[in-house]
Amino acid sequence: MKKNVMINSNNCVPFHNAVDSCIGTGRMGLALQKEYYEQLKMVQEYIGFEHIRGHGLFCDDMAIYQEYQENGETRVEYNFTYLDRVMDSYLELGLRPFLELGFMPKKLASGTQTLFYWQANVTPPKSYEAWEALVQALLVHLLERYGDEVVTWPIEVWNEPNLCGFWYQADMQEYFKLFARTFRAIKAIDSRFRVGGPAVCGGSDRPWIQGFLEFCRAEKLAVDFITRHHYCSEPPETVGHYSYIELAPFEKELENLHSTREIVDSFAEFAGLEIHITEFNTSYTPLAPIHDTNQNAAYIAYQLSRLGDDNASYSYWTFGDVFEELGVAFTPFSGCFGLVANGCIPKPTFWTFYFFKQLKAMPSQCIHRDGDSVAVKMQDGSYRIVAWHKTLHRQGEALTLSYSLDIPEGDYCIVRKLVDEESCNPLKVWHDLGEPANLTKAQQKLLKESSSPAITTKRVRAEKGSGLTFDLTLAENAVVYLQIVPAPLKPDRGYCYEHVMDQPVQN
Amino acid sequence: MKKNVMINSNNCVPFHNAVDSCIGTGRMGLALQKEYYEQLKMVQEYIGFEHIRGHGLFCDDMAIYQEYQENGETRVEYNFTYLDRVMDSYLELGLRPFLELGFMPKKLASGTQTLFYWQANVTPPKSYEAWEALVQALLVHLLERYGDEVVTWPIEVWNEPNLCGFWYQADMQEYFKLFARTFRAIKAIDSRFRVGGPAVCGGSDRPWIQGFLEFCRAEKLAVDFITRHHYCSEPPETVGHYSYIELAPFEKELENLHSTREIVDSFAEFAGLEIHITEFNTSYTPLAPIHDTNQNAAYIAYQLSRLGDDNASYSYWTFGDVFEELGVAFTPFSGCFGLVANGCIPKPTFWTFYFFKQLKAMPSQCIHRDGDSVAVKMQDGSYRIVAWHKTLHRQGEALTLSYSLDIPEGDYCIVRKLVDEESCNPLKVWHDLGEPANLTKAQQKLLKESSSPAITTKRVRAEKGSGLTFDLTLAENAVVYLQIVPAPLKPDRGYCYEHVMDQPVQN
Amino acid sequence: MKKNVMINSNNCVPFHNAVDSCIGTGRMGLALQKEYYEQLKMVQEYIGFEHIRGHGLFCDDMAIYQEYQENGETRVEYNFTYLDRVMDSYLELGLRPFLELGFMPKKLASGTQTLFYWQANVTPPKSYEAWEALVQALLVHLLERYGDEVVTWPIEVWNEPNLCGFWYQADMQEYFKLFARTFRAIKAIDSRFRVGGPAVCGGSDRPWIQGFLEFCRAEKLAVDFITRHHYCSEPPETVGHYSYIELAPFEKELENLHSTREIVDSFAEFAGLEIHITEFNTSYTPLAPIHDTNQNAAYIAYQLSRLGDDNASYSYWTFGDVFEELGVAFTPFSGCFGLVANGCIPKPTFWTFYFFKQLKAMPSQCIHRDGDSVAVKMQDGSYRIVAWHKTLHRQGEALTLSYSLDIPEGDYCIVRKLVDEESCNPLKVWHDLGEPANLTKAQQKLLKESSSPAITTKRVRAEKGSGLTFDLTLAENAVVYLQIVPAPLKPDRGYCYEHVMDQPVQN
Amino acid sequence: MKKNVMINSNNCVPFHNAVDSCIGTGRMGLALQKEYYEQLKMVQEYIGFEHIRGHGLFCDDMAIYQEYQENGETRVEYNFTYLDRVMDSYLELGLRPFLELGFMPKKLASGTQTLFYWQANVTPPKSYEAWEALVQALLVHLLERYGDEVVTWPIEVWNEPNLCGFWYQADMQEYFKLFARTFRAIKAIDSRFRVGGPAVCGGSDRPWIQGFLEFCRAEKLAVDFITRHHYCSEPPETVGHYSYIELAPFEKELENLHSTREIVDSFAEFAGLEIHITEFNTSYTPLAPIHDTNQNAAYIAYQLSRLGDDNASYSYWTFGDVFEELGVAFTPFSGCFGLVANGCIPKPTFWTFYFFKQLKAMPSQCIHRDGDSVAVKMQDGSYRIVAWHKTLHRQGEALTLSYSLDIPEGDYCIVRKLVDEESCNPLKVWHDLGEPANLTKAQQKLLKESSSPAITTKRVRAEKGSGLTFDLTLAENAVVYLQIVPAPLKPDRGYCYEHVMDQPVQN
Repeated sequence: MKKNVMINSNNCVPFHNAVDSCIGTGRMGLALQKEYYEQLKMVQEYIGFEHIRGHGLFCDDMAIYQEYQENGETRVEYNFTYLDRVMDSYLELGLRPFLELGFMPKKLASGTQTLFYWQANVTPPKSYEAWEALVQALLVHLLERYGDEVVTWPIEVWNEPNLCGFWYQADMQEYFKLFARTFRAIKAIDSRFRVGGPAVCGGSDRPWIQGFLEFCRAEKLAVDFITRHHYCSEPPETVGHYSYIELAPFEKELENLHSTREIVDSFAEFAGLEIHITEFNTSYTPLAPIHDTNQNAAYIAYQLSRLGDDNASYSYWTFGDVFEELGVAFTPFSGCFGLVANGCIPKPTFWTFYFFKQLKAMPSQCIHRDGDSVAVKMQDGSYRIVAWHKTLHRQGEALTLSYSLDIPEGDYCIVRKLVDEESCNPLKVWHDLGEPANLTKAQQKLLKESSSPAITTKRVRAEKGSGLTFDLTLAENAVVYLQIVPAPLKPDRGYCYEHVMDQPVQN
Repeated sequence: MKKNVMINSNNCVPFHNAVDSCIGTGRMGLALQKEYYEQLKMVQEYIGFEHIRGHGLFCDDMAIYQEYQENGETRVEYNFTYLDRVMDSYLELGLRPFLELGFMPKKLASGTQTLFYWQANVTPPKSYEAWEALVQALLVHLLERYGDEVVTWPIEVWNEPNLCGFWYQADMQEYFKLFARTFRAIKAIDSRFRVGGPAVCGGSDRPWIQGFLEFCRAEKLAVDFITRHHYCSEPPETVGHYSYIELAPFEKELENLHSTREIVDSFAEFAGLEIHITEFNTSYTPLAPIHDTNQNAAYIAYQLSRLGDDNASYSYWTFGDVFEELGVAFTPFSGCFGLVANGCIPKPTFWTFYFFKQLKAMPSQCIHRDGDSVAVKMQDGSYRIVAWHKTLHRQGEALTLSYSLDIPEGDYCIVRKLVDEESCNPLKVWHDLGEPANLTKAQQKLLKESSSPAITTKRVRAEKGSGLTFDLTLAENAVVYLQIVPAPLKPDRGYCYEHVMDQPVQN
Repeated sequence: MKKNVMINSNNCVPFHNAVDSCIGTGRMGLALQKEYYEQLKMVQEYIGFEHIRGHGLFCDDMAIYQEYQENGETRVEYNFTYLDRVMDSYLELGLRPFLELGFMPKKLASGTQTLFYWQANVTPPKSYEAWEALVQALLVHLLERYGDEVVTWPIEVWNEPNLCGFWYQADMQEYFKLFARTFRAIKAIDSRFRVGGPAVCGGSDRPWIQGFLEFCRAEKLAVDFITRHHYCSEPPETVGHYSYIELAPFEKELENLHSTREIVDSFAEFAGLEIHITEFNTSYTPLAPIHDTNQNAAYIAYQLSRLGDDNASYSYWTFGDVFEELGVAFTPFSGCFGLVANGCIPKPTFWTFYFFKQLKAMPSQCIHRDGDSVAVKMQDGSYRIVAWHKTLHRQGEALTLSYSLDIPEGDYCIVRKLVDEESCNPLKVWHDLGEPANLTKAQQKLLKESSSPAITTKRVRAEKGSGLTFDLTLAENAVVYLQIVPAPLKPDRGYCYEHVMDQPVQN
Repeated sequence: MKKNVMINSNNCVPFHNAVDSCIGTGRMGLALQKEYYEQLKMVQEYIGFEHIRGHGLFCDDMAIYQEYQENGETRVEYNFTYLDRVMDSYLELGLRPFLELGFMPKKLASGTQTLFYWQANVTPPKSYEAWEALVQALLVHLLERYGDEVVTWPIEVWNEPNLCGFWYQADMQEYFKLFARTFRAIKAIDSRFRVGGPAVCGGSDRPWIQGFLEFCRAEKLAVDFITRHHYCSEPPETVGHYSYIELAPFEKELENLHSTREIVDSFAEFAGLEIHITEFNTSYTPLAPIHDTNQNAAYIAYQLSRLGDDNASYSYWTFGDVFEELGVAFTPFSGCFGLVANGCIPKPTFWTFYFFKQLKAMPSQCIHRDGDSVAVKMQDGSYRIVAWHKTLHRQGEALTLSYSLDIPEGDYCIVRKLVDEESCNPLKVWHDLGEPANLTKAQQKLLKESSSPAITTKRVRAEKGSGLTFDLTLAENAVVYLQIVPAPLKPDRGYCYEHVMDQPVQN
């Protein structure tokens, strides 16, 4: 399949590239782990996200909410030892939290229903006053320790209350109560805090968002932003530990997502309000092998080119594979959500994010965007392109993009970084090694060495008038990053490359 | 071109693989530099040599030999500050010095003739007693500081005295005098020290080695080993800063080398004496671009498969490009000798050494060796092969090796690491960028990323009886490393790779 | 108080210094944490233990024992992901595990009784066959991954079964059953494994050890070693979160400890069998502020001088303060067991271990040992002394040790490293800062800077015949380390220290 | 000796604290060394200077100026390989160069006179056009590589031309010519460059500065700043390698320095022009043991409290001991200029700089300054004091400063960091070890451990009205840094420090 792509280098194409605004994480208690830190460190060194969001801030392994008996009474005290350790490590890595308030400390819970292998209590508080006190104590502590910047950390109330598993009976009115109480408790500390919800996932998202905004209007809650999730697959088929999915057609879930924008804009008070996708991915289950594939990388590339159209930010779920919602993974490639597999091995989708981040590494202007690629002109006079060949199912056909780019006359170097099933596919290497559950040091090293983009360079010449034309061929599920940099040849005195390489000398 | 390679995995083929015994270095004074240390550290982390040898131990920038006036007399004192700093850094990196005694401190010299940009004085000592005292003071100091292991550090007397540039008038008798005085001075400190010479380069090597051994016999000097150099090109053509060479035919210089073995063995007292090649490379000039090429890597691969036949060790000249014999390089790729270019960028030949080192990473047995490849069986049941496609001039024809390997029945993974002009050629990347003299951080990073072997893996099955057959195709100047490791498939419960990859399931 | 200490440098005094043989740790699941790793890394860099022992190998947060349903049946599978991660990190830090088998995975338990904040199940297995299978699977896996060295890792069965809290009803016969089943299951895998028990704490230690050995004799179990614990205080007084204790008189608990030796030796089959103290400390509770004090350091110094008399090893409980038995600590100094406080701040007792380790940093010979100090002669001709001034209660009196040491004539330098309440007392610094619960980076830095021994040096002269005499004064709870190193003055040409320092020149 | 120091915490005392504006260095060629880098890294981590200035930018070891023959003509080419390596490392460490243009490349020199062990050519250029071309090529290259910030790097023309040794015959008119040619050549590249001189040392400084300004007026050179040096001792007495000095009385050299301010201000066009002390120290010779002493630290403390009165910046000569002006040091403590001795051992004066830097670690206001101490109030509500007891000769008398500080009521912690001859004197430790020329790893470690300030803390209470009063006693040559930080006691539930410490409980 061949497509012509004509680009005028003076175009100015709208493209809100929020690739690095936020990233998801396994529950906060896991942020104490060394492997978690190392994966996050790697992600920050290569990609560099601004915010991080995950569950479990108030879960018992964080040990914040404590009760004790004194003089025959039950009293409350707060322990911020682990919270500070986690926050310190986030800040050290250049991250700010996107705070999600939840789930319920066991001793503060009204019921016993739990979720996940790690038994998150998902019931409302037994006392809303105690809940408010907890939320306020948290924020007061954070302000004391981290200063005024804390008011810029976004706050989201609970997670996916529209699912029975995540919120007792998916009780909408109870959630609205929780939101209103929490919202007012926070603003009482400092009105500059920004608070949002309702953090719903797809399915019942429309009635919930509609209902939530009506509630806010009625209660005069000046909600600061709307949050929701975005997954792109049907319920999976499960075999043994693993879930196999069908990817949703490319536009389907994007259309559902757009409905949120429409609902919000239909409220005069809320029109234009920021929408944050606080979770997105292909599959929503943590043992779905799709997450480890090049197919995922190409699918997500397209998502990254589109999600900014309606949304202020979108947070890939998750940065790494230290994750326990369905238990501890048996193998290093377990289909978990992460950009990075256990052992600090980057998956193909890691590079999709890395490539999109390069498009904004310095001031730049988008000059082209379609369903296969995005191109930008950088402040330094170079050009950068991310291209992909997305598939729902293997067809066996490559995609060739024939670029025609009217850039100034001169010599250029095209640097190509290629991630496809041949060149950068650690899952295949792991399979070829026999799918070992426990990597030896040598296997881990080999996997890391095998999971970088293949790099090639080429000298090209843009002619006056005609500019630059070149073909880029992508195998199925490939993601490619191109840099086109001015490269006039400045040989040192006496140096002749063709002579060195035993090649015919060019004129 | 296709060749069949039949290998019986129970073969036991002689192969003295001394790839890691010794490595060359720019003059010792440069060992104080940070860039030098970083290049050497990288070399040691990947390859791990045992010894290091270079010039300039007694040159004035090392500041060892000092004179001062007292009571109207000239007195001598020794300064070991820099020597210790260098030796400490070598030991820290797992290296022992192969000590080369030379050149002459200016104040101890009998003349003013110098060599190199850094003006090494190459004249005999004005006083042999003072020279002996200097040598002895050096060794006494080293023993004091580093203990008894110092007696195992080999000692070579001077460098290439058969060239007028390196030793005043290439005066053979004066060299023999120097050798005898030095030899006896050292043995007087500790007879366990091992002392050798005559450190000659090709050309007049035969008469010098013959003469040297006759001298030793006559003087009853029980020389501990013989040293010489080995370069494989004719005198170069020079244009501007650079020297362009013709590589010697593959066997030519090896034959010359063998003559040394024959001369040594012709002396009853010295038959079988260790020969150390204390320098070897393709070209002997430091601004010869051949050193930076894949052609060099393939040519050296063949050398590494052969040099152990006659020699105890062979020391590639040099590990890195911090080097000043003809001045300071103007560009990061300047045709200098190093395995690593300035900026810590590994050249293709770096990987040749790395690959040969893998053949002895654990106890192993050579099962095949010919002009194109070497194969070994490792203690852990895996197999390793290094193969190359060496050329003197580009013919445009690939080489296919059709291996037939009778290994035990079972599933294996073949890991291939490929270094060729397409996959791992930093010189080309640098050229494509316009041959910048001063790398930006981004260019340096790109060059480092571009200079690793391309890795691919493949599952294969060895059948009972027939074993394993596979083709390996090498482009010109390619060097390839294969690991063949047992890899029975052990999928986790429910995991199916073909399902994951949207592929037909295999039976 | 002044005491004379006469030392003949040719003495050979028995002293089994096993200071570095083993160290305790919080539960294994905590070993995944970054803070845990950093504390352990620091401990290993300074002290360097050989083994590490703690609870929780089989607890649910390690996720090893898993059940699932298939075809209507419950099946078992094992997950070694976390185990390998922990073992890898231990080995990376130079440690081998002293394996403690326990506590019970919830799904394998016969009851619901739990212990600690982290709810260790302390009931016998519901199926001894399943328990045996679990133990065997563990060892087979470890052998596969880490090779033959695994058989040298000591194995202990359960922990403190003589306490109701740690073993259901402290049922002795049930423990013996567990031991026998476990012992035989292990030996069936490889008879070289070394297995011991009964891991009891004080109180009922005598009947339990007596009974255990009788049981082993009766059952013909060739138990490989005996284990027990050793704490030196009475039950504490508790106020709020904290426990305040009385230290036991210096000899009291040592005498109890000796009774174990006597019991073991009273069995013909077991006489001389190794005894391992698999836990010891002053207080046995984790919120006992004594652990953070200099008093603890001095008390433990004396213990370290004595524990080797009867025991093969003794494992201080614990290396660090990542620990949750009674919950998460509210403050960085919480009286937890660690040598290192949270934030990687070494406590005084850290240095006691460091000092005793220096006594065996190279081959050495003990030349003096009494209740106040130990002195050794090192292979390199220097001398090392650890001295302490232990107290049960503050008396306000310093201790002066007047040493007389008959060492060879010459100039020496005495290097003194002092840990006392003035010089190295991070607890006081933290208190002076107001006892902050959450350290700022600046406070943490200050605390680390404040917690190193004070170092002073002094030139002294040993005269022919009389040797060296000097006074060492120790404040209460001080621990001091002395090095006495030969230090002949070798000034550089023209250098005169007294002149430099504007001091009268010595003759 | 006791002095009362009354401080009103609302004072606003003038104090231009430029402690961190610039630091001196050994010649630029040495900046390639690893030991140099490590010392500088340490200095930057602790102190953090903004600029660095030293000699040798154009000396031959930097290899910038090159000539070659082509078609029978001599041509010039520039090699920036080493320059870039040095500049990169400076920028990496947060430093900008204070460029000193000099000395003369041998091939560009008009004569053969050299200076120093490393043979700096100090003659005028043989061609002023070639000199201008060299200077311009340098700046054009720097602008290309480092961008627009290069115009903010100050540029000084030559070094100490008023000494015969540093400039041929100390020829004033020739220097003025050099200055004018250089000044105009630079401004022709970019008029924003800031260029100054005449870089004189004391002695003939007055006529030179007067003459220089008259010349600039006459030639209409809008010189951007004036530079000079400041050393505080008489010519030394030399014994062997070493120089022993008398320190100048405290005010003497400061008065000479002030004369420069007066001369500059006497020119209408130049009144108020910035003066930069581009070198200062006690002794001006590099083998003067005074530099390694506590006496130096206290003397410099006073200098740092005063030098900002007349000068924009003042650059201590030098940061470290990688230095070769009089050859390579024989010992780690050789009286060289550095803040850090070889082996990365901080000398007492290092801490003087560190302490003064703390006074400006955040916005602050000076509230007291006299001959013994400086006090500032920090933005965070704490107070910081640097105090010293400077001596010219040992008198045997301590200095007690009785502070009375009217700060707000409350509990405070006084943190004291003490550098005196007992507590932080690595020179003494080295002497006590026998003055070893070549440190073992163990000796180096001990020296590093011995060279940190002794830290003590103390809780104090400021009473309403009376504020805080306390005594600070300083031994001779002591330098002390105090922090007085608010420290209300916030004990955790149940924690009682006095109980823990077995002390009487306070009320």
